[in-house]
Amino acid sequence: MPDLKTEVISVGTELLLGQIVNSNTAWISDRVANLGISMYYHQTVGDNLQRVEQAFKTASLRSDIVFITGGLGPTEDDLTREAFSTLSGIPIEEDEKTFASMETFFKNRNKGMTPNNRKQAHVFKDSMVIENPVGIAPGIIVEYANVTWIFTPGVPKEMEAILDPFVFTYLRKKYKLDSVIRSKMLRFIGIGESQLEHDLLDIIKSQSNPTIAPLASEGEVALRLTAKASDINKADQMIEEVEQKIKPIVGQFIYGENNRNIEETVIHLLAEKQLSLSSAESLTGGLFSDKLVSVSGASQVFQGSAVVYSSKAKNSVLEVPFELIEKYGTISEECAELLAKNATEKFNSDIGISFTGVAGPNKSEGKDIGTVYISLYTNGKKAQTTKHHFHGDRSSIRTRAVKKGLEILFHHLKNL
Amino acid sequence: MPDLKTEVISVGTELLLGQIVNSNTAWISDRVANLGISMYYHQTVGDNLQRVEQAFKTASLRSDIVFITGGLGPTEDDLTREAFSTLSGIPIEEDEKTFASMETFFKNRNKGMTPNNRKQAHVFKDSMVIENPVGIAPGIIVEYANVTWIFTPGVPKEMEAILDPFVFTYLRKKYKLDSVIRSKMLRFIGIGESQLEHDLLDIIKSQSNPTIAPLASEGEVALRLTAKASDINKADQMIEEVEQKIKPIVGQFIYGENNRNIEETVIHLLAEKQLSLSSAESLTGGLFSDKLVSVSGASQVFQGSAVVYSSKAKNSVLEVPFELIEKYGTISEECAELLAKNATEKFNSDIGISFTGVAGPNKSEGKDIGTVYISLYTNGKKAQTTKHHFHGDRSSIRTRAVKKGLEILFHHLKNL
Repeated sequence: MPDLKTEVISVGTELLLGQIVNSNTAWISDRVANLGISMYYHQTVGDNLQRVEQAFKTASLRSDIVFITGGLGPTEDDLTREAFSTLSGIPIEEDEKTFASMETFFKNRNKGMTPNNRKQAHVFKDSMVIENPVGIAPGIIVEYANVTWIFTPGVPKEMEAILDPFVFTYLRKKYKLDSVIRSKMLRFIGIGESQLEHDLLDIIKSQSNPTIAPLASEGEVALRLTAKASDINKADQMIEEVEQKIKPIVGQFIYGENNRNIEETVIHLLAEKQLSLSSAESLTGGLFSDKLVSVSGASQVFQGSAVVYSSKAKNSVLEVPFELIEKYGTISEECAELLAKNATEKFNSDIGISFTGVAGPNKSEGKDIGTVYISLYTNGKKAQTTKHHFHGDRSSIRTRAVKKGLEILFHHLKNL
Repeated sequence: MPDLKTEVISVGTELLLGQIVNSNTAWISDRVANLGISMYYHQTVGDNLQRVEQAFKTASLRSDIVFITGGLGPTEDDLTREAFSTLSGIPIEEDEKTFASMETFFKNRNKGMTPNNRKQAHVFKDSMVIENPVGIAPGIIVEYANVTWIFTPGVPKEMEAILDPFVFTYLRKKYKLDSVIRSKMLRFIGIGESQLEHDLLDIIKSQSNPTIAPLASEGEVALRLTAKASDINKADQMIEEVEQKIKPIVGQFIYGENNRNIEETVIHLLAEKQLSLSSAESLTGGLFSDKLVSVSGASQVFQGSAVVYSSKAKNSVLEVPFELIEKYGTISEECAELLAKNATEKFNSDIGISFTGVAGPNKSEGKDIGTVYISLYTNGKKAQTTKHHFHGDRSSIRTRAVKKGLEILFHHLKNL
């Protein structure tokens, strides 16, 4: 494999003003590492012709592959094309195909195309134009001065859609990147990061290929296994071997692999067991339901949710008697159980889950911020209710309550 | 005020591998903008002596103030000090005070100090040492080659604690930074970025202080007005004057200022008009409700939402007759109207809003992906229903439907 030097140049005054965090650069760097080549430099410059050009010049003298994000938009201060054209002498011209699809884009939205928008169809003469599947300005690849120059818009999802897979496939081919890096994520719920790392310490320490990296996010943990080998089969086999060491120790907490999230696993398990689900949400306010509906195909098993935020709604929509509310409060085991049961019946589902608690910023009904009851009801059986204390702000508490509900459903469904 | 050029150099191979996002640089940039001086460049290099030294050399030729984060830790690959010493010829020496507090630090934690830890007490001869209140390695300020060099560890909370307030106060004093920068965001809904820029082009072009910067996000746009003046009152007055030019042209699309989001504005308007709201959600699946509940205080005006994802639930929970569904389908004006009306009645609210449509990935009831009906019902009046076509993936379509619903509510409530 050649020793290629890679560099990212981010263009945009908003970055220099600290208005946004440069997540693009981290994303590109991660992908470049997976190609098995080295990232050497990141540069950021503002929307200034001279300084953008200078950044390109610096890169041309030290790097083999240069990614440039930003400065391809419709406004006056989008100068990336002009700067590169000045440096290289390569003229800018309009790409007919891009302009045609821009016309369709604006027509479909019943919007007029303003004159400045036309600029987004500009590319370099004889360059490779890569369609932008989620926006307007296309990506561009130019080979110039022994450097591969790759231009993309700065909007993260546009940049990602342009680079992956087209540009990375192009680089693999051009530079004959023949060793492969394969990664697999194992996703855990119900175990903390430090506990996981502790339980697997011997394995983690004795491994260098594949590497094992724990990654924590709100309410769950993942392990990233990364292997480098001469072909895909070998790399996958190396990962498989490490997995076989990990699973006997902490396998019961694994809910999925790679990009699968916990809500997909729950929907999948419901479908497998031919069960339908509904929910009753107070503090979570629709967030639980939203997570499930975000999974395509949810409609097969998820009936819906009664978001009963006020006491009045708990009564009028889910028939929780005011006497119960007066006696136990809405943040109680009693209320949680009745919400789960009545949602199940109202939606005619097999299983119902309810969430009631205090998201903050103030205490409620004398209960501390973060107190949450989650109740799981299966038709005809006694409801299972658990009490939790979550930490953090309003948003964290609501998110953690939903994660915990998904964890409870996962363990329940898995063992049916 | 001098025209100072500022630069940030981040040192760390983990950044080049994309293992972490460089949030330090955004934080420093934001603070520097508030000092009223300009950030010109960001650079990132790995833990390599030669490349770190080269980054310093580049900065010394073009910048007046250079922030360096990272590479001050205890390990072999922490090379920031060595690189700067090589460039400048300034010797490295141990700071007695830092070393003494390190000894206390380890003693208090009952840990032995490993020999490599001692490196963290190393500073430059005759430099200014800034205590690290939340970690070990101190910050360092050096004046060399007409540049102010500021070194901090890369751990965000250590960097922040060292810079703020000590370093910023030092810079204010040294460079006599007596002007202030004030920013204000105007937030728009119902107008696109290019339309907004087109309508305001003359104002934007003729303005340099305050500057006017448009920023787009999914379904809405903001304008950031930034003024530089000798005192806060003057800066605020300059912003006020530009606002008075903008408002007659596009003021009807402004829903809020600064950090206020559209859901807060809707909750605020409901409270002001003493009206309560509920919703019926099909394709949005709880996302609308979740947005409202994320606003603290929503419970005063938001009753709840019936997430009726399946046809069965539309019937059993919101009493939409199966005959209506058979005749018009669930993705229809007729269904949307009845959902809005029945949710309003079920939740006993003054206003109800409903969402029904096709989020994808497949067509539904013969309707194209992105077709969405939104219906607004006010007790006793005829429902107002609009049909929309949103583009993008499942998640984008659902998000845009919710934004459009909030936009409809905003315009309705504002004009009551």
